[in-house]
Amino acid sequence: MTDPLTIALDVMGGDTGADVVLPAALRALQKRADLQLILVGDEEIIRRDLQALGAADNRRLTVQHASQHVDMDEQPSHALRFKKDSSMRVAINLVKEGRAQACVSAGNTGALMATARYVLKTLPGIDRPAICTALPTMTGHTWMLDLGANVDSSAEQLFQFGLMGSVLAGAVDDNSNPRVGLLNIGEEEMKGSETVREASTLCSSGVLNYVGFIEGDDIYSGKVDVVACDGYVGNIALKSSEGIAKMISFYIKREFSRNLLTRLAALVAMPVLKAFRRQIDPRRYNGASLLGLRGIVIKSHGGADVLAFANAIHVAVVEVEQKVPERIRSQLHSVLSRRQAG
Amino acid sequence: MTDPLTIALDVMGGDTGADVVLPAALRALQKRADLQLILVGDEEIIRRDLQALGAADNRRLTVQHASQHVDMDEQPSHALRFKKDSSMRVAINLVKEGRAQACVSAGNTGALMATARYVLKTLPGIDRPAICTALPTMTGHTWMLDLGANVDSSAEQLFQFGLMGSVLAGAVDDNSNPRVGLLNIGEEEMKGSETVREASTLCSSGVLNYVGFIEGDDIYSGKVDVVACDGYVGNIALKSSEGIAKMISFYIKREFSRNLLTRLAALVAMPVLKAFRRQIDPRRYNGASLLGLRGIVIKSHGGADVLAFANAIHVAVVEVEQKVPERIRSQLHSVLSRRQAG
Repeated sequence: MTDPLTIALDVMGGDTGADVVLPAALRALQKRADLQLILVGDEEIIRRDLQALGAADNRRLTVQHASQHVDMDEQPSHALRFKKDSSMRVAINLVKEGRAQACVSAGNTGALMATARYVLKTLPGIDRPAICTALPTMTGHTWMLDLGANVDSSAEQLFQFGLMGSVLAGAVDDNSNPRVGLLNIGEEEMKGSETVREASTLCSSGVLNYVGFIEGDDIYSGKVDVVACDGYVGNIALKSSEGIAKMISFYIKREFSRNLLTRLAALVAMPVLKAFRRQIDPRRYNGASLLGLRGIVIKSHGGADVLAFANAIHVAVVEVEQKVPERIRSQLHSVLSRRQAG
Repeated sequence: MTDPLTIALDVMGGDTGADVVLPAALRALQKRADLQLILVGDEEIIRRDLQALGAADNRRLTVQHASQHVDMDEQPSHALRFKKDSSMRVAINLVKEGRAQACVSAGNTGALMATARYVLKTLPGIDRPAICTALPTMTGHTWMLDLGANVDSSAEQLFQFGLMGSVLAGAVDDNSNPRVGLLNIGEEEMKGSETVREASTLCSSGVLNYVGFIEGDDIYSGKVDVVACDGYVGNIALKSSEGIAKMISFYIKREFSRNLLTRLAALVAMPVLKAFRRQIDPRRYNGASLLGLRGIVIKSHGGADVLAFANAIHVAVVEVEQKVPERIRSQLHSVLSRRQAG
């Protein structure tokens, strides 16, 4: 019997492992009275740390031992072959067996993707899963995929990314008609590669609320609810954005610490700058979905802190409640049967 | 006889045309006593505006009439066929004829690229020119190319981008050994598409100071002096960066204008924020080079203001002085002959 809301956590994944995952687990339990968590990893470490956190007797926490863990720089194929008892793999197995309805890992992205795909399999009609996350915009947020699981995506894959993103936005944001854009280097129809132009034709078939091509700056403008793109492009767009945001923050800090006067100005400006940072705090957006699988797998940032990892657990909870994989399956099914009929 | 330093300006290009180009021209003349400018466009408008600016008798300004201009959204092929007397085309012709050593246009990028390529031709061994610009980093700046002239670049093209960027960094920054990185979705050798991995092998052949793959965030970290990438990816990375920078600025402004207290904080913080903005002012980085042509063509941003357009003229001046096309030609020649010998 599956408990109504049970999520497996890969305790050993990420840069900090149990130090972040366990406090985040407790935080998530506080927020949701009906949530149960399975803590997967080295049982001795987990029990010791739970003791230290005063949570050894928490009945909503179960420990599932796993004797191995996947290194952050380990080859996915190596993890797949030689880490069959890793915390990551065991957490995914729990989803496969129906003992958990979702799992969350801050581990090695490539290994997580490969293992999830191998264990859970993709939904019918999906070639490869995609990585999707919410990003802040000037008006709220947008869902962007793929962020690096696929390179050289086909037109059909790009269409599927649009569809899966659309389902996710619909489910999580209760948005009945999410606007989908295809990332390109110009808004005109003749721009970009043949693949992206073919994808545009597929997206225009009527299934999606497709608004056409969008350019890189529109990711953050609020023009669309879903940004579909190849994983190579999406990953580079996301990391470039992170890079310039870091640089901006670096120069702001440097200017404010230049001399006594600017340091005083910093004191005055600090509350405002803090309020601003809350708006686009990447921790609030932590928790990327591996979409297209027969199960829910959420990837937390490897360097996530407690707040960020707790947010990734929250993403898993929402996707369980909204039955995201089932919704994607049914949308895909209707597209595929319509195509066969047509 | 070519004058030692003569640059042709497309006066009708960009969103604002003469209103920006003419004041920028005067500013550039003030900075360089040996500079001559040829103003290309509607002679009547140019003479009237020069009069208004009190520069009608400036002997270092020549007017070259052109009866047409290329629209910002015009198809490149249309401009090529039907706009043979456009200000853009005439400016490029002046370079071809040796009457100017470089030209600067804020016009339609696609048309500028197509016309420059058609009129000036590419250097031997270059398939297609690339768009290259400097971008601010935490330690100075980096040169990034291609920014949108090419999609689906081959491994050989990516190598050529690295080589051309390296020559530009060497010439403009007097950097004898610029570090070149290939943009990819991970730093490990097996990451990315086959094309980018092949390009990495070509870049490792010893001609370049190649540091390997870099990720999107490293564009702004100062890790490399040259970022080589496909134009589709480069364009999206650049525009995503612009997009998030705009969003950050939007949220900072909003927080500072929230109430009386935050508006007072803004007054105190303003000088510091202004100093910060000067550091990464995009106007200071205006002026992208179309590299790989048998001549110097500089693309200004369509929405450039006077300071920004004057900076694009400065970029042209530096490339003339540093003989950038000749340097690229000679570097390429030595690579190609070494390959034939080996």
